[in-house]
Amino acid sequence: MIAGIIGAAGYAGAELVRLLAGHKKISALSLGSVSLEGGRIDSVYPNFLGKIPCSLLKPEEVVEASDVVFAALPHGVGEGFAKACLEKNAPFIDLSADFRFDDDEEIFKAWYGKGYVYPELRKRSVYGLPEMNREQIKTLAATGPIIIGNPGCYPTGASLGMLPALMMGLAARGTIIVDSASGITGGGREPQRSFHFPECSDSISPYKVGAHRHTPEISRNMQKMAAIFGGPLPKLIFTPHLAPMNRGILSTIYIPLRREWQPPAPLSRAALPPSKEIEEKTEEVRELYAEYYKEEPFVRILPKGVMASTGHVRQSNFCDISVNMDQGGSTLIVITAIDNMVKGAAGQAIQNMNIIMGFDETEGLETIPSLF
Amino acid sequence: MIAGIIGAAGYAGAELVRLLAGHKKISALSLGSVSLEGGRIDSVYPNFLGKIPCSLLKPEEVVEASDVVFAALPHGVGEGFAKACLEKNAPFIDLSADFRFDDDEEIFKAWYGKGYVYPELRKRSVYGLPEMNREQIKTLAATGPIIIGNPGCYPTGASLGMLPALMMGLAARGTIIVDSASGITGGGREPQRSFHFPECSDSISPYKVGAHRHTPEISRNMQKMAAIFGGPLPKLIFTPHLAPMNRGILSTIYIPLRREWQPPAPLSRAALPPSKEIEEKTEEVRELYAEYYKEEPFVRILPKGVMASTGHVRQSNFCDISVNMDQGGSTLIVITAIDNMVKGAAGQAIQNMNIIMGFDETEGLETIPSLF
Amino acid sequence: MIAGIIGAAGYAGAELVRLLAGHKKISALSLGSVSLEGGRIDSVYPNFLGKIPCSLLKPEEVVEASDVVFAALPHGVGEGFAKACLEKNAPFIDLSADFRFDDDEEIFKAWYGKGYVYPELRKRSVYGLPEMNREQIKTLAATGPIIIGNPGCYPTGASLGMLPALMMGLAARGTIIVDSASGITGGGREPQRSFHFPECSDSISPYKVGAHRHTPEISRNMQKMAAIFGGPLPKLIFTPHLAPMNRGILSTIYIPLRREWQPPAPLSRAALPPSKEIEEKTEEVRELYAEYYKEEPFVRILPKGVMASTGHVRQSNFCDISVNMDQGGSTLIVITAIDNMVKGAAGQAIQNMNIIMGFDETEGLETIPSLF
Amino acid sequence: MIAGIIGAAGYAGAELVRLLAGHKKISALSLGSVSLEGGRIDSVYPNFLGKIPCSLLKPEEVVEASDVVFAALPHGVGEGFAKACLEKNAPFIDLSADFRFDDDEEIFKAWYGKGYVYPELRKRSVYGLPEMNREQIKTLAATGPIIIGNPGCYPTGASLGMLPALMMGLAARGTIIVDSASGITGGGREPQRSFHFPECSDSISPYKVGAHRHTPEISRNMQKMAAIFGGPLPKLIFTPHLAPMNRGILSTIYIPLRREWQPPAPLSRAALPPSKEIEEKTEEVRELYAEYYKEEPFVRILPKGVMASTGHVRQSNFCDISVNMDQGGSTLIVITAIDNMVKGAAGQAIQNMNIIMGFDETEGLETIPSLF
Repeated sequence: MIAGIIGAAGYAGAELVRLLAGHKKISALSLGSVSLEGGRIDSVYPNFLGKIPCSLLKPEEVVEASDVVFAALPHGVGEGFAKACLEKNAPFIDLSADFRFDDDEEIFKAWYGKGYVYPELRKRSVYGLPEMNREQIKTLAATGPIIIGNPGCYPTGASLGMLPALMMGLAARGTIIVDSASGITGGGREPQRSFHFPECSDSISPYKVGAHRHTPEISRNMQKMAAIFGGPLPKLIFTPHLAPMNRGILSTIYIPLRREWQPPAPLSRAALPPSKEIEEKTEEVRELYAEYYKEEPFVRILPKGVMASTGHVRQSNFCDISVNMDQGGSTLIVITAIDNMVKGAAGQAIQNMNIIMGFDETEGLETIPSLF
Repeated sequence: MIAGIIGAAGYAGAELVRLLAGHKKISALSLGSVSLEGGRIDSVYPNFLGKIPCSLLKPEEVVEASDVVFAALPHGVGEGFAKACLEKNAPFIDLSADFRFDDDEEIFKAWYGKGYVYPELRKRSVYGLPEMNREQIKTLAATGPIIIGNPGCYPTGASLGMLPALMMGLAARGTIIVDSASGITGGGREPQRSFHFPECSDSISPYKVGAHRHTPEISRNMQKMAAIFGGPLPKLIFTPHLAPMNRGILSTIYIPLRREWQPPAPLSRAALPPSKEIEEKTEEVRELYAEYYKEEPFVRILPKGVMASTGHVRQSNFCDISVNMDQGGSTLIVITAIDNMVKGAAGQAIQNMNIIMGFDETEGLETIPSLF
Repeated sequence: MIAGIIGAAGYAGAELVRLLAGHKKISALSLGSVSLEGGRIDSVYPNFLGKIPCSLLKPEEVVEASDVVFAALPHGVGEGFAKACLEKNAPFIDLSADFRFDDDEEIFKAWYGKGYVYPELRKRSVYGLPEMNREQIKTLAATGPIIIGNPGCYPTGASLGMLPALMMGLAARGTIIVDSASGITGGGREPQRSFHFPECSDSISPYKVGAHRHTPEISRNMQKMAAIFGGPLPKLIFTPHLAPMNRGILSTIYIPLRREWQPPAPLSRAALPPSKEIEEKTEEVRELYAEYYKEEPFVRILPKGVMASTGHVRQSNFCDISVNMDQGGSTLIVITAIDNMVKGAAGQAIQNMNIIMGFDETEGLETIPSLF
Repeated sequence: MIAGIIGAAGYAGAELVRLLAGHKKISALSLGSVSLEGGRIDSVYPNFLGKIPCSLLKPEEVVEASDVVFAALPHGVGEGFAKACLEKNAPFIDLSADFRFDDDEEIFKAWYGKGYVYPELRKRSVYGLPEMNREQIKTLAATGPIIIGNPGCYPTGASLGMLPALMMGLAARGTIIVDSASGITGGGREPQRSFHFPECSDSISPYKVGAHRHTPEISRNMQKMAAIFGGPLPKLIFTPHLAPMNRGILSTIYIPLRREWQPPAPLSRAALPPSKEIEEKTEEVRELYAEYYKEEPFVRILPKGVMASTGHVRQSNFCDISVNMDQGGSTLIVITAIDNMVKGAAGQAIQNMNIIMGFDETEGLETIPSLF
């Protein structure tokens, strides 16, 4: 099977190249780039010398040549390629935001500043967070060509952290806060002042506070989860930060607990160290999370005492989750770690392809997290 | 005037040495170390070669020789030196937690595992966050010898971010969340696996979630602030993280707003980009913060569009604050950045000395933040 | 086939675990640790959770259970295990220095401070730099059990950079200088002050100048290469540095050229930009290098204009080499980049196993260098 | 006295701003920028908020307003400002290469691609490496207006490392090799792919091998030093590297020793650990270096066992030097560390101003190296 990658010279595209090159069901790659058409991928990335000797073609040629197409393009420019894939009956896996909002063009427009080009394509598209939507993906794929709206990097880590709590009705009415830090590859390959080494190394900063485009995507996921349980619809506050590292997103998620999920001990207003009751309740919730995710190949609920850390999922498709509680017992503090370029982008796209094609879901994604 | 530093070979101690060496009112330093007694500070830190040619003495000798004593010791071992200073009428500025909790020995015991050695010393001690307690410091210093409980690094950044909101009654009943990331100097000079370069570089991790010792200190500060205004007593959730950088603490602080401080626009459950009303309300609160801190030499309320970043306060005693609101208009998101070794430790200790001695409060602390 | 790893909890051991877990000819791992015996490898490295669920056994048990044994132990403690392996006819691949010096116990003693325990084992040992000794390895393996003295990390990068020049007689009589910088994983897993994040991040330092233990190993390799050609025996100066990064060794190697290999243009004492003659001569030598290594699966001679960089070989078994000349045309400047943990340790050990066992030499080592 | 800075918004310019703001003899700053004229320096660098509230003027206005002018401009565009300063009798301190080559326009042209605009200005210019040229600077300044060609960053560290050896005739005929690594601020403020965080972090690379513009500057300094002693004129090989850190240049300098400076012990071709004779000889040379530099306020000859490290000179004007010998005793290995933005740029420029104006040479440059 030939896999095509449009936008192969960007970071997410190149990570797709690297991962797909080791995928047993993919016999060849067809790489496309608008800006570097005619060049070679191993000139852009000397890492690929001797391993990926491909030229960079026109996107149209890639669509033509491929049995499945991945697009790692800016938002709002790839719908035509999606349409062409549908027409030739090839799955189209889109890493931009174009297909993440289903019919809700209004929300997309409000945050991304443009409308849909071919709105009707959403009849064949599904939001590709497998842990939430695996059945929808399979069902849609069974009936014809399919478009995957591959989730954003922050929404992946955030959604996986709250999924069990919302699906099992742990969350009280109120606001869930997601406080995240991302590595600098999240900003892409184009040099900018914010990502210039002396400006961002040895420093941490928030950005787009109260105004990041991943907010509506996380929020929509929350609403869906809560609606399935029938619980109160939670509100979201999301704050991203930039941390001086290459890969990874850590999300610290504060979920207010419904009274019946809080430890029985009387809550003191004074801050005291965590009580035995709190430790036990935390353990109980951790077990719920472990049970919830027990069939998932890429979610690891960490044992007591092990904290989620981006360093522990480096280069892998894992989402690590540690379950904690505040010292007052009122709030669940779930911490998730992913590699933003793998589970947060290229790896999850491949996971979606595996599901669509009926491959083993872990094929091409077996990397053990690198130690350093 | 001779300044003594006990624990001079640790990171906070050495930063005190470096800053005090440039303080115009200090004519000489007397340096003490328990573990390295008899050695030289410039053997421990070659940075000091040719600049700080001091030997390391016994702590007792330092107390004897000095007109003001700084102690950068582990918790629970310095009370005897504080007592000796009181007796010789020299100010004692303590960077440990021993004098941060005033009479509340119970809270100290609950979190630090030991009681007070000389409880009566608290009659002469005050918590040294100048922006909150400057008058108490001055008043106590005017009546005799004084002990300063120099604030913890996280509590400094957290407290300065919430002070105007609590003192002016902006906060609704409920929970304030402080999500912080610290540079690795916060862990001190002793090698440990968590701070071993390959274990912490290029990665971010939380630690002591729901169980960090700075929680009761921040919480106590919050209660005091809220009590002064007469507002509802807020609860605290505090989560520290370790970021791969040397210096700095960034705190992202979520403060639920009282209804009258929320923008008038109807709050949609759906996540929309920030409205004009929210931007205006944010601007209003920013101006309140600016007004509140207008006389403070070390607090900078950042203009609209500039985000607090640890890189902007590097090497300085500044606390930078940016004021933001979530896209729903229900929560103030205040972000503070300090250099953990300066405003979070050594610089604030010197600021306290300046206040006690009646020096210009900025003396020795004029450093412009380093660009990189 | 079962692979045993003694010293599995150290960095090189753990990297072996990670790589061998994906090796198609290895059906199971047996992991040993002296200090952590009875523990689990995924407690030491949470990266391994769900992937490497092994307990840590006694080294003796590992030898007993395994068909091939890798030892990542300190120098001077593993000879007994080597002996036991010989006796049970299992290959023993030793990552310490114990078997790197063949019969030359004197040199080993001079630098490592102890003699051989079982000197006679050297009859069955060979220095495992495949690009230099592949035939010896094969020949010895064909006649019975074998011990591999896996090369040091610096000697690997240094030797591969000078091999073609010395084997083809390009080097003039004189001194070859190797100036190298290593990532901090080279210092191992045990916390030490030099590798404490605040002490080594954002800084570069030399260490053991004129006195590093890898000097005699590189020097011996040079002598052997030069002797094969029959050229003058070169002297070596080697200076290692510590750079603030996790992985990688970059070696900048200065090789004085014999007159007939220097460009014909008259050499000006004044420093001028590189002339056309120098560029052409450089290209000629680059082609010689490319020709020399053309069958090697793990050596990449970089095209003109691409510089060796540790970032381009990250996580892979490649040694990248760029060939340059000084502006005066008298000296070849060869720059090599390896991943110190892969080609400089675990990867090369597996490459040696593959050769011994007659597997495809790249089996388990196909990783494309990670982009970041 | 008013100091003007043209090119104040670049990294070297901004570092000048920061350092001059604390200089006791400077009463005000006048800041100029071509590209950001009309803007504010504290918009460009939020670090400066509340400390440097200056607008950015036209360069001509800066010249007009200032008593001394610093120019941190690209090469080849500042001669007109130098001329204007001469005419108004204000010292002009130029951080570009325009005035580093005195009358040797040919060498300048060969490496920088353009000729001099006003060649006659070189009658009033001097190369501003104080440790080499202090007397010439003073003499020229005594007779009228003066232009300083402030040294390049690499040439500063390289030249200070070889000055005593060449001036005292230790070097044998032959080639001196300078192998240097620089922090990424050396590449300036403009974002470029090479300095994009994910491209350069966690990696080390050489660049412009055999072809860096600082080669002729170092070479010229060497010739001058050697000529003063009357020794053989040495040749130079210089290789720069980019290391993943913000500040600092480390230079490892290999100087072949004349026979009479080599230790008496017979030199073995085999690599042996350093002998007592070598240690003694090293100590002897170290003492010579210490004696040579004993009056220099910014050069520190490190004691035995302390290695030069960029981390030990951070933020300071120091050049740290450690003196070593190879294990064969034939080559001096001198290692120097500077902060590229201070002694390698802005600090040295201020040191030159201090000399010209007759101020204390350390005024404004007393910073103790930051610990981290």
